Amino acid sequence: MSLVENIPYDELQIGQCASIERTVSERDVQLFAEVSGDRNPVHLDAEYAAGTPFKERIAHGMLTGALISAAIAGHLPGPGSVYLGQNLRFLRPVKLGDQLRIELEVLEKLPKQRVRLATRVFNAQNKAVVEGEAEVLAPKDKLRLALTALPPIQVG
Amino acid sequence: MSLVENIPYDELQIGQCASIERTVSERDVQLFAEVSGDRNPVHLDAEYAAGTPFKERIAHGMLTGALISAAIAGHLPGPGSVYLGQNLRFLRPVKLGDQLRIELEVLEKLPKQRVRLATRVFNAQNKAVVEGEAEVLAPKDKLRLALTALPPIQVG
Repeated sequence: MSLVENIPYDELQIGQCASIERTVSERDVQLFAEVSGDRNPVHLDAEYAAGTPFKERIAHGMLTGALISAAIAGHLPGPGSVYLGQNLRFLRPVKLGDQLRIELEVLEKLPKQRVRLATRVFNAQNKAVVEGEAEVLAPKDKLRLALTALPPIQVG
Repeated sequence: MSLVENIPYDELQIGQCASIERTVSERDVQLFAEVSGDRNPVHLDAEYAAGTPFKERIAHGMLTGALISAAIAGHLPGPGSVYLGQNLRFLRPVKLGDQLRIELEVLEKLPKQRVRLATRVFNAQNKAVVEGEAEVLAPKDKLRLALTALPPIQVG
């Protein structure tokens, strides 16, 4: 059972960072296609993608957004956070197999428990693929909880 | 086989709109938890969620971002678009079973085939749950293509 713990507003400090790593798999792209409804062949069909300017399949841009949101929800500030806003710039394509590092940094503590975070994603070559900022309502109280296990789901 | 068609840059007009509807199911939230890695019980565990300020399970905020990205990729401008940026404000929680309407509108045509879109999401009570803007590199050429079928995938 995975336990996660948050960092309440009062404990957050400017410059505080968290990062997670994630390799983008073919399965990730297929699941994102299913849940978003975007089954464009540039993401799913290697032969089709070879004829595009990208030369190979690329992940959906917003899959990286999903990873940023999970890093916020799980790590900084973590459980009990409420997502208020997110800006994203998609700087470079993410290819299947790319190993991504999602980095969060506390930029500013705002009134009413709100915080502004830098949200940056780098590939294995250390090139930024996404940059942006999030605004989050940070949790007031310390919270430590178990992540929920998923039931079996069949796709495709 | 689903066919989709794009609207090339030269055919896009200021004020042009597209919208899709989507009911957020428990399965959607479970799949988004799997692909993002955010298995926070506020999204997945009805009993836990009943004790939160939301009183019931809510969808991940970025699931709505995924639906916006799919509307852009599939409808306006559609296939061949390149996602450059997205701003999101999460205004209200999305509950499981909520019927969402994702609305896109061309706000501005920029140089070098870029367009700025309003991206708004409403619930069945016609309340805005997300608002924001996207910047997209619109396709130069007309494109009509078949969406890719997904292979079987097992989750959980």
